[in-house]
Formats: sequence, C-alpha cells, structure tokens
Amino acid sequence: MKTYHKKAFSLSKSRRFLEPGPIVLVSSAWKKESNIMTMGWHMMMQFSPALFGCYIWDGNHSFEMIRRSKECVINVPTADLIDQVVSIGNTSGRDVDKFKRFKLTPVLGSEVNAPLIEECYANFECRLADSKLISKYGVFIWKVVKAHVATSPKYPETLHYRGDGVFMLAGRTINLRKKFKRKNL
Amino acid sequence: MKTYHKKAFSLSKSRRFLEPGPIVLVSSAWKKESNIMTMGWHMMMQFSPALFGCYIWDGNHSFEMIRRSKECVINVPTADLIDQVVSIGNTSGRDVDKFKRFKLTPVLGSEVNAPLIEECYANFECRLADSKLISKYGVFIWKVVKAHVATSPKYPETLHYRGDGVFMLAGRTINLRKKFKRKNL
Repeated sequence: MKTYHKKAFSLSKSRRFLEPGPIVLVSSAWKKESNIMTMGWHMMMQFSPALFGCYIWDGNHSFEMIRRSKECVINVPTADLIDQVVSIGNTSGRDVDKFKRFKLTPVLGSEVNAPLIEECYANFECRLADSKLISKYGVFIWKVVKAHVATSPKYPETLHYRGDGVFMLAGRTINLRKKFKRKNL
Repeated sequence: MKTYHKKAFSLSKSRRFLEPGPIVLVSSAWKKESNIMTMGWHMMMQFSPALFGCYIWDGNHSFEMIRRSKECVINVPTADLIDQVVSIGNTSGRDVDKFKRFKLTPVLGSEVNAPLIEECYANFECRLADSKLISKYGVFIWKVVKAHVATSPKYPETLHYRGDGVFMLAGRTINLRKKFKRKNL
C-alpha cells in the first residue's frame, strides 16, 4: 500500500485539504476500542483557531465513541484507498476491527488518543470545541489541534462522493493566484 | 456563455451536487438590491427535509442581506465560470452590481425572492431553518425548498477551492455502486 512521508502542517492552513470537500475517514478511540468511519458531510468554520464542523449519524458505531471521547482524527485518503473507503462505509465497528480487516496502520497521535491512519495523505487531530449541536443536528464542532500532511504530492488525488455509489476523483489544478486581491488569498 | 437546460430535482437528493464540496455562488436579495458571493465552507446536514449549513463571514456585503431576508440561492457553477467565480470573490456588492458586471442572468425563483443564476449548473432555493449559530459562528442552517438541476451532463465539472488562489476541477468518475450495501446507497 502507498505510504506518505508526512510532516507537521500549519493549523490555520488546514482548509487547503478540507475545503475541496473530500471524503474523509474519521478515526476514534474509546476505552480499548478503535474504529473508523467514512464521512462526507463536513466544512471548515474558522481559520484560527482552526474550526471544523461535521455531521455524524447517531446510528454509526463511531458516534458514541466520538461523543464520549470528545476527540477524533480526520484522515484524508487518496484514490488508491477507494476500496477501503467503500468497505469502511459498508461495515460496522460493532462487527469488525476495521484497522485489521482493511490492513490500515494505526499511528499514535501527539494530541489525542484517537489513532491516525498511516496510509492517508493527511491527518488532522481534533478535540471537541462545542457539543451543543450534537443532540439536535448530529453536528460536532472540532478544533484542529495538530495537522500532519504529506510533503508530496502538493495536490492530492482526493475522493469526492456524489452519492449513489459514485465517486468523483480530484482532477486538474488551475492556479489563478494572480487574479486574487492579496487580502483574499 | 454556456447555458443549461434545467428541471426540478428531488430535494432529498440535493447531496449529489453539494456533498462533493464545490465552490458555490450564493445569491441574495434585500429590498431592491441583489448580490452574489463566492462560498466554499458548507455541508449537507440532513436528507429530508434537506438541510444544508454554511459559513458566511460577517464582513461580506451579502451577510446582512442574507441574514435579514432569511433566504438565499445556492448556485453551483462549472469550470466555464471560473473567471466569474474569482471575480465575484474579489469584488464587493458595496461597489458593484455583480450580475451586471459579470454578465450573469438573474432568474426569478419559485420559492424565494433571491434570484437564481441562470448560467449555473444547479440552483438550490433555500429558506433559513435555524439562525442560532449565526452570531457565534457565522453559520446559517438552510432548508432547501426547491432544486433546479441541469439535465445534462450527469456529472458536472465543478470547481473546488484549495486556498491560495488554486482550484481543483472535478475529475473522472468511478461508480462502485455494486460494492455498497443497498441501505447505504
């Protein structure tokens, strides 16, 4: 399996890898158990501190693990992991140890107990910033407390979910930096 | 400019065009003024009724127009509109009538007073569902009340913002429907 060489990344620039809207893998740990879920409903909410919101269905086995531990890691997979992404989304942590079953490597984080997924392009360690929307909307508001991002390639081939079993892969890159006002960059 | 033939689309399937994480254009109207802003921080929150959350900076001219009117249209542009997307994000409705300046066509919606942008691939008419997060987080929670989506192509070439003036264009499509459990489709 592909592995990436990663290094610590600016928290306030986390948006570079999350704003394009990739499917992410959310890893969690609670008591002696760890788990992974596939998630596509998320958004940046603030640059600094970096806030990130996401929706988690309360029927997911991860829901209570994440709610109780108040931590998670947002992992950004690339196209080479598409089969794992689908399999993780179609099995439950109630039945399966997903790290073992899908041959993914859990790596100890530096700020949270939830494990990072080694094979992903980027890992964002998150601590719960606000729990008020969980019961009404299933929305968790996270503070990104540590970011690990691959040094290469600069633009990862992320997966974007169109629903109905269909994925879009990140395509070509267009740099229009020169057309931006400096304050908007 | 490219135009799309659109028809009414299932509200609960709005996720097909919003979950992949495209940059969207938010159109609004208040009193006799209309405006457009570029926005990348958004997420689906519920299938039915279709709920959609987004962050809007309170420094945007659109912010007060949207907050007061409690309505907006979420328009999904495709790659042919990349120059308009950048220009809209780098000008203010305080100074410019963006429909006129960027030669975009405002179309009357069926449920809200905010105008649809004719040249976009899809338009989602939205009514404010919850204002409680606006003051603390700048997050608006919308109910999608009417969806208009182009009949072709099936998979639009949307724009995804990587920050720093760089866009990713939607790339190839992979259908893994057969690997999904029916309940997860």
